[in-house]
Amino acid sequence: MAPICALIGICMAGYLGSWVLKQDPGPEKMNNISLKIQQGAKAFLMSEYKLLVIFMVIVAVVMAVALSPITAVAFVTGGILSALAGYIGMHVATRANTRTAYAAEESVAKALNISFKSGLTMGLSVASFALLGLSLWLLLLVFGVDTFDLMHEHVGMVEGFATGASAVALFARVGGGIYTKAADVGADLVGKVEAGIPEDDPRNPATIADNVGDNVGDVAGMGADLFESYTGSILAPTILAVTFGALGYFGAVGTVDATWAVVVPLMIAACGIITSIIGLFAVRTKEGSELHKALNRGTYVAAGIEIIAIFVIFFIWNGQSANQPIWLFGSVLCGLVAGLLIGKTTEYFCSDHYKPVHQIAEASETGPATNIIQGLSTGMLSTIIPILLVAFAIIGAYACGNMAFANIVTPEGGIAVGLFGVALAATGMLSNTAITVGVDAYGPVADNAGGIAEMAGLPEEVRERTDSLDAVGNTTAAIAKGFAIASAGLSAISLFVSYQATMHHSIPNFELTLTDPLIIAGIFIGAMIPFMFAALTMGAVSRAAHAMVEEVRRQFREIKGIMEFKAEPEYDKCVAISTNSALREMMLPGILAIVIPVVIGCFNPAMLGGFLAGAVATGMLLAIFMSNAGGAWDNAKKYIEGGAHGGKGSEAHKAAVVGDTVGDPFKDTSGPSMNILINLMTIVSLTFTPLFIAIQTML
Amino acid sequence: MAPICALIGICMAGYLGSWVLKQDPGPEKMNNISLKIQQGAKAFLMSEYKLLVIFMVIVAVVMAVALSPITAVAFVTGGILSALAGYIGMHVATRANTRTAYAAEESVAKALNISFKSGLTMGLSVASFALLGLSLWLLLLVFGVDTFDLMHEHVGMVEGFATGASAVALFARVGGGIYTKAADVGADLVGKVEAGIPEDDPRNPATIADNVGDNVGDVAGMGADLFESYTGSILAPTILAVTFGALGYFGAVGTVDATWAVVVPLMIAACGIITSIIGLFAVRTKEGSELHKALNRGTYVAAGIEIIAIFVIFFIWNGQSANQPIWLFGSVLCGLVAGLLIGKTTEYFCSDHYKPVHQIAEASETGPATNIIQGLSTGMLSTIIPILLVAFAIIGAYACGNMAFANIVTPEGGIAVGLFGVALAATGMLSNTAITVGVDAYGPVADNAGGIAEMAGLPEEVRERTDSLDAVGNTTAAIAKGFAIASAGLSAISLFVSYQATMHHSIPNFELTLTDPLIIAGIFIGAMIPFMFAALTMGAVSRAAHAMVEEVRRQFREIKGIMEFKAEPEYDKCVAISTNSALREMMLPGILAIVIPVVIGCFNPAMLGGFLAGAVATGMLLAIFMSNAGGAWDNAKKYIEGGAHGGKGSEAHKAAVVGDTVGDPFKDTSGPSMNILINLMTIVSLTFTPLFIAIQTML
Repeated sequence: MAPICALIGICMAGYLGSWVLKQDPGPEKMNNISLKIQQGAKAFLMSEYKLLVIFMVIVAVVMAVALSPITAVAFVTGGILSALAGYIGMHVATRANTRTAYAAEESVAKALNISFKSGLTMGLSVASFALLGLSLWLLLLVFGVDTFDLMHEHVGMVEGFATGASAVALFARVGGGIYTKAADVGADLVGKVEAGIPEDDPRNPATIADNVGDNVGDVAGMGADLFESYTGSILAPTILAVTFGALGYFGAVGTVDATWAVVVPLMIAACGIITSIIGLFAVRTKEGSELHKALNRGTYVAAGIEIIAIFVIFFIWNGQSANQPIWLFGSVLCGLVAGLLIGKTTEYFCSDHYKPVHQIAEASETGPATNIIQGLSTGMLSTIIPILLVAFAIIGAYACGNMAFANIVTPEGGIAVGLFGVALAATGMLSNTAITVGVDAYGPVADNAGGIAEMAGLPEEVRERTDSLDAVGNTTAAIAKGFAIASAGLSAISLFVSYQATMHHSIPNFELTLTDPLIIAGIFIGAMIPFMFAALTMGAVSRAAHAMVEEVRRQFREIKGIMEFKAEPEYDKCVAISTNSALREMMLPGILAIVIPVVIGCFNPAMLGGFLAGAVATGMLLAIFMSNAGGAWDNAKKYIEGGAHGGKGSEAHKAAVVGDTVGDPFKDTSGPSMNILINLMTIVSLTFTPLFIAIQTML
Repeated sequence: MAPICALIGICMAGYLGSWVLKQDPGPEKMNNISLKIQQGAKAFLMSEYKLLVIFMVIVAVVMAVALSPITAVAFVTGGILSALAGYIGMHVATRANTRTAYAAEESVAKALNISFKSGLTMGLSVASFALLGLSLWLLLLVFGVDTFDLMHEHVGMVEGFATGASAVALFARVGGGIYTKAADVGADLVGKVEAGIPEDDPRNPATIADNVGDNVGDVAGMGADLFESYTGSILAPTILAVTFGALGYFGAVGTVDATWAVVVPLMIAACGIITSIIGLFAVRTKEGSELHKALNRGTYVAAGIEIIAIFVIFFIWNGQSANQPIWLFGSVLCGLVAGLLIGKTTEYFCSDHYKPVHQIAEASETGPATNIIQGLSTGMLSTIIPILLVAFAIIGAYACGNMAFANIVTPEGGIAVGLFGVALAATGMLSNTAITVGVDAYGPVADNAGGIAEMAGLPEEVRERTDSLDAVGNTTAAIAKGFAIASAGLSAISLFVSYQATMHHSIPNFELTLTDPLIIAGIFIGAMIPFMFAALTMGAVSRAAHAMVEEVRRQFREIKGIMEFKAEPEYDKCVAISTNSALREMMLPGILAIVIPVVIGCFNPAMLGGFLAGAVATGMLLAIFMSNAGGAWDNAKKYIEGGAHGGKGSEAHKAAVVGDTVGDPFKDTSGPSMNILINLMTIVSLTFTPLFIAIQTML
């Protein structure tokens, strides 16, 4: 069923994509700007993929030698499918921008239609490719195998697929994030602040790079990001089910519960693709109706049907089982409620309707220093509720999972099936990825359309319309962000538990005790990694932005007539700076994320257990802290621009611009990479367990 | 022996203090300024102690009911002795300032002599009071008891002493930190930036508050801080020894190793006081000789003798034992080397002689935003090496501890004695607290002396001399900071392990397994607490500074003639703002740090175990990150003021001032409170174990 749903999703994506490309791209002037963006984005992606190919070949060879050739092949397919989904999404997005801008001349509804369908092309590609690859590998290697022991061995190879997806995601997010923020910060610091020209002004040499950045960072990067977390969320419960089966907790292969436990994650995901397509039809807007509501309707319709579908799945299972698997629906609900509430907290801390952003705006009155202090403080404060919610979701999903199989399992088995509930909670949260990505990815298209409108000198009202489109996505995007954070945490924990269970399966006395000094040292080192990662990526943005600032200043100085629109700036030089910086700077953090866990695991697998626990905890904290602080600074600036505390041009506004600039790498480079980082490190550890076990048994 | 050494220390402190007070306070004008600072500081401390009395009475009553009356009494004595040491130190420091300034008119050597002896008065008071209280309680309750079980029960009461010390320390650090930074930021933002008058100018209404802040934050706060970590580092190995004895790892009471293990921490501490006094005599400076070297000589002489003394102690033990306790000297060395190297990294990241600070200064050229990004990135990067060093120190000290008792213990006992080595490493690091505090606490005295020189209009060269004194302490202080961070981590781990061992002693199946969902949830919540704490304290500084800015602006506006030196500003109103804000804002974070662990422990003691592990890890990370980022920003500003990147008044300088202001609460409020926070939370958990055990056995 899963591959068929995936194929339906791919067909739908193809249909939507070709529909978008058939729309009128507008007059030549607009199309030319779009062409420059297309070229820049394509050139970057191609260079990025070239580097990734080298990297993937090296890792694949290591995997083939240290683990197994099949794992290596799975790794490569995971990487390729992720890159392909990102490429398709970006291909359509960079063409949808001018079409959206042109349509906005006519009506908002038409512009929304194009940009949203472009986003959904990407969303469906991401979900369908991931599900297709994963389900085919599972069909090939895991389903139909006779014993859990063999299943367990084979699922270890499928983990290669998830590792490939996560590795590509990390590079895409970090590279794209550095690209987009170097261009953005560079364009703002010289263009807006020093030269005093508006955003997206064609006189700014960095403006094309800035618009390219929106696509490679927010479209391709985000797509790869969700490809990996979606893959992880489906694979995590499957791995747990198989491993717990091998440990004897679930009964023999072929018993009702064992069969269901293995296939249920794929079923939930398959339903999610169909419900996302249904949700698409609910997004219709007439001129004058609220855009906001149209988008929400789509998301809510899809979510509503999906919840019913999940309930039905567990209900059927319940009918066939001697246990009460219907309780697992409770696990899924725990995850959904936590994700929803985290989204609401995100909105509270980042929206300019509430106190936190107002306080940052107020603190801007006494200058940039107090703005920064208040923003950092707000970001840190915003971690409290999400972390508590994740903790409650873990406990709740665990308790429900425990209830589901209360009457057959052994004591250790009780803990195991409880954790299976935790893993399923993440699957449920991400099952609607297709439409969620759609809502998320339409934002940058609208943003780009606004940029083209500005550069092509379209009437003011067009820009207003694209801006309204851009703004509207934010609420829905905030909720999607909540789900992303919560599910990353739950998936990482499930994978972490799978790691322990896998090691335990081969080395029975393998245990993770919190008072073991090696594990304590591991926790310390693991907790430090996200800080190191944030430092490297922020430093990268800082260096790249510095180079960009110098280049823009040079062009303003040396190219006569830019300011009078008489000479065209050398856009391509700025594009080249962003491209080269991003490619150079993304390598180190990405490689470290893969190498460090493997090195520690070879040294001592128990220490790696502590390492992962520490990394997941601080990774989540920094993800929430940095994303929310960045969002709050952004909106504090917009709030002041809306007229508060003196409005545009006031001292408070200048201070708020400083906060916004600091927030850029926070919310678009370092923050969003954290979830991928922790998932990548856990899945890498899990994939390399055969190597660690071999080393331990050799000693 | 320990109480006698402590009494010697107290006599010496009394002698030094009265010597300082006998020095000439200078002409009336200077003395009057000093008097205002004395009054402000005393008034603040008195109000703070009043609040603390209420708080301590409530906690003591709870303890008396929930634990035992003796624990409550120990708690109160710990609090009182800590407060007393802080009070004495501040009493002398606020009188030494004018004496130092007056002596600086004559020579640097004389000024150094006064300020250093004032610092040492405090240092000796801190160490001697702590050792006196602790050793008397141990003599009274623990030593001479027949069985380890009874010892274990009694040492639980002595933990009350450490809890009291930690609680007072947290309030003193947080309250003092908020006070000093509110005054500092307020004075800078309006005085330096808006009105353009120099630092410590008598026309600035916040200048007295600023100078009072140096005393209540950097003198009294720091004293209480070291009182608690010193107490913790001595008590942690004792608790471990007694608990492991009760678990049967060390043999019966009276056997050689059991006796030595219990008393050796006190012996190391007692030697430390004597060696500190010897070190004092090594600090002599003649005019023209390098100040730097004189101070370092004192520290190094004390450290050298102390290392020899520790070696001798273990050597004697080794001669009497059937084991090789001499290996424990290796544990101590691991701690010392780690502390030393952490200090060197701190210096590398914060000193303006090295690349990190230069990069921040360079990033200032493109404005405050890039300065902030670079500073945050530097701070995060600076966590890598210290965390690795702490991890290596843990593993090394553990391995040595393990070797020490390799031939008698059971497998679990092997882990236990290894951890005893980890605890002793922290004891060794802090054994020279008396002279370390002396070197640290003389800085604010010199700083204050400079302020008085400026306000009293003394000749330029006096200010230069006090500035040179102030600057010189920094290197030695950086190394002291390294020891503080490393020892806090090691002590917290030892206390954490004691917690597990204590629970395990009463509930044999109590285990902390990293895959238990409750423990994972605990790690998440624990890891979040330091973020929450940082957010609350930074927010407090932001709010208090805001009130201060408004008040200073009001005075400049409403009091005619301030700028022409014709009218005196209302200093006391600014003092009142700092006092009230600090007292109001310190309560919530302090109370949370005590209440949260107790609540979680009552709910589930295993979850509390995870909570503590998470809190210790992120607490250390934030401590290093915030302190180093703050220090680096500070020195980047000073580096620019020294003439780089355009020097004073340039755009780069303005950007660097923003970074420095953001760094103020980082390095002086939130960062230094982290170590106390994690120690307080672990010691509170440990002290309340009888309650948790009672609840668990009731269920």
